Amino acid sequence: MELVQVIGIGASIGTGVSLLPQLVKLVKEKRAEDLSLVMMAVLLTGLALWIVYGILKNDAIIIVSNGVSLILNISIIFLSIYYRSRPDPR
Amino acid sequence: MELVQVIGIGASIGTGVSLLPQLVKLVKEKRAEDLSLVMMAVLLTGLALWIVYGILKNDAIIIVSNGVSLILNISIIFLSIYYRSRPDPR
Repeated sequence: MELVQVIGIGASIGTGVSLLPQLVKLVKEKRAEDLSLVMMAVLLTGLALWIVYGILKNDAIIIVSNGVSLILNISIIFLSIYYRSRPDPR
Repeated sequence: MELVQVIGIGASIGTGVSLLPQLVKLVKEKRAEDLSLVMMAVLLTGLALWIVYGILKNDAIIIVSNGVSLILNISIIFLSIYYRSRPDPR
């Protein structure tokens, strides 16, 4: 495997799983007041376009890493809306 | 320009600028308690690797969109640490 591929895979994993710690924090603390839902909505659009791009380019790394991000992103959006609709536990 | 390029540029813009609304919210509300700094740190690593990947692949779209994200990301990290070190305005 070439160096450029290794870096590409590392980059995909880095940006792909970056939403995981946010999801874990959200589930643990059940608070989403400071999180921007606009960010998550813009990201949702971007990730969906990346998946389409990956399909058209037939690039499995792009499809999988952005697919993982999309699942994490949608989970964060739903949980944020849910926790915001409840009284603040603070 | 081919459709796949248009989608790639749209995807880059979508994921590239997604951090902007979070930065705006942070500056306006001066609170970062619910934001995961682990997410931002993992993202920093991923974005830096994407820029290296873009340079090696000689791909301007990847370099620019991830460069914009990196600047927004670093701004969010610094402001989050700053606001967390001050008393909560709530």
